Amino acid sequence: MIETLYWKNNCLYLLDQTKLPHKIEYVECNNYREVIHAIKTMVVRGAPAIGVTAAYAMALAELEGENMDIAGEEIKAARPTAINLFWAVDKVLENIKNGNTAVDTAIQMEKDDISINKKIGEYGNTIIDENDTILTHCNAGALACAGYGTALGVIRAAHEDNKNINIICDETRPVLQGARLSVFEMQQENIPVRLIVDGAAGHMMQKGEVDKVIIGADRVAKGGVANKIGSLMVALAAKRYDVPFYVAAPISTFDFENNIFDTTIEQRNADEVLKINGKYISKEETKVENPAFDIVESDLITGIITEEGIKKAL
Amino acid sequence: MIETLYWKNNCLYLLDQTKLPHKIEYVECNNYREVIHAIKTMVVRGAPAIGVTAAYAMALAELEGENMDIAGEEIKAARPTAINLFWAVDKVLENIKNGNTAVDTAIQMEKDDISINKKIGEYGNTIIDENDTILTHCNAGALACAGYGTALGVIRAAHEDNKNINIICDETRPVLQGARLSVFEMQQENIPVRLIVDGAAGHMMQKGEVDKVIIGADRVAKGGVANKIGSLMVALAAKRYDVPFYVAAPISTFDFENNIFDTTIEQRNADEVLKINGKYISKEETKVENPAFDIVESDLITGIITEEGIKKAL
Repeated sequence: MIETLYWKNNCLYLLDQTKLPHKIEYVECNNYREVIHAIKTMVVRGAPAIGVTAAYAMALAELEGENMDIAGEEIKAARPTAINLFWAVDKVLENIKNGNTAVDTAIQMEKDDISINKKIGEYGNTIIDENDTILTHCNAGALACAGYGTALGVIRAAHEDNKNINIICDETRPVLQGARLSVFEMQQENIPVRLIVDGAAGHMMQKGEVDKVIIGADRVAKGGVANKIGSLMVALAAKRYDVPFYVAAPISTFDFENNIFDTTIEQRNADEVLKINGKYISKEETKVENPAFDIVESDLITGIITEEGIKKAL
Repeated sequence: MIETLYWKNNCLYLLDQTKLPHKIEYVECNNYREVIHAIKTMVVRGAPAIGVTAAYAMALAELEGENMDIAGEEIKAARPTAINLFWAVDKVLENIKNGNTAVDTAIQMEKDDISINKKIGEYGNTIIDENDTILTHCNAGALACAGYGTALGVIRAAHEDNKNINIICDETRPVLQGARLSVFEMQQENIPVRLIVDGAAGHMMQKGEVDKVIIGADRVAKGGVANKIGSLMVALAAKRYDVPFYVAAPISTFDFENNIFDTTIEQRNADEVLKINGKYISKEETKVENPAFDIVESDLITGIITEEGIKKAL
């Protein structure tokens, strides 16, 4: 398995996910501002991976001798929707107060992320049946985490358990994480996978070709789950055609304080929609709405697969 | 308004819609086989436009002295889902039996298409309110017809009636007819328009930002409507958030004989999904499902706007 990120000689190396699946290149980050830039430009993405990356950004800030509170605020501002970013920065700050270093905290968080995902995989495997076809949206895979993956971690666990399963990946416009990343991860594991456009998920369910849907989450809170734009429409189709709809996410993704509809939905750059492979698909001046996430309401969710078992949505 | 197609000196000129909005180029068809190729490669697309184009293909076959029944069968096979293709070929054959020429029939069908669309616009305008935001999927515009449009014809009629309206276009992967064609048509008319990815339609409705949905249809039959892939998911979101969901289509799109679930859903080439602007978004060997259409079930449809008034789904 390709490493999403690694820490070596006081330097953070991030797999440049904007170049996948065509090129495998790492971005070297020597200071925390380079990490913020990498998060903003989606060199690294996926809630758990962003969390671990943010911890390493704090580690770099520490090595640079920066004011850790100020660095923490800047890192938190990199992307507003993923709760793991906030959670990771706060955890590092708390550990520093308790006499630990940011570097050690980040290294531990990376290890923990992988073992948490393996537990999510174990619990998730209990709901996967032989010959299931599982549809997933975006990439909640090893690439979205320090490793193994959440939604794709469940799929990996079922595959390791020798279950015969088939995967359908939504391409996930605008950034195409499904087409570029999830399909790539499945191909690397030799798990049978098919790619569809986002609009085809409903049709596949209407035809009875999908047994389960599993997606990741950027935030779980009262009322629902925030995840990649398009997740809501997949959930509505799953409801219509009685397809169990699961979210796979670590407890660090849970926000027990707030309502999910109070989540800031990040609006990203128009060019993310307008420009594909360097060319405009509409006129350059076309007005665009580009929300990065949407909210899947709790009544649409069958269960949330966590490292502590399968839970009801909040 | 740019012409979708025109007939001149016994030759059919088709606006090459694969090159829009960046280039305005016409493909010259001197024989009916060139027209079949243009339909297959989506130089021309949209159910009513395909109907008129098929009639002109028959006109060319007539001028070439071909066996009209055989030519008709070949033309019908160009794309399996659009009923207008079958309807148009059969109408030409019937008119020939009654002593008319295919050329005259095609010219008349082109004229009729535009006047039918204007009637659809008139009826449709009655359901549009001042300050409505209308979401549309794919392109059921002038470019999908001989002119004026069905779903976009309703929008044009409301705009001509000086109603203040705002349009949201789904980009409509894989062929991006929303981004390339519908946005372009709205910009040409100075109707305010915003582009979204297909996955964002549910989010916009959940936020209460959409007052109505209007789409076109490739076939209306008992049980629902066949239209561009992704239409079903838009309809499910509209149902969830109580947004009236209209289909705009001429009576020629109605199949009163069959059940909509007996419709052949065309599977198109994998590269339509895999390759955007000349570059692969996933590995070239990735397996793809590429259904061109899906079925919106009748209970999801508020009404069908036709040239004979607004009707219930079959």
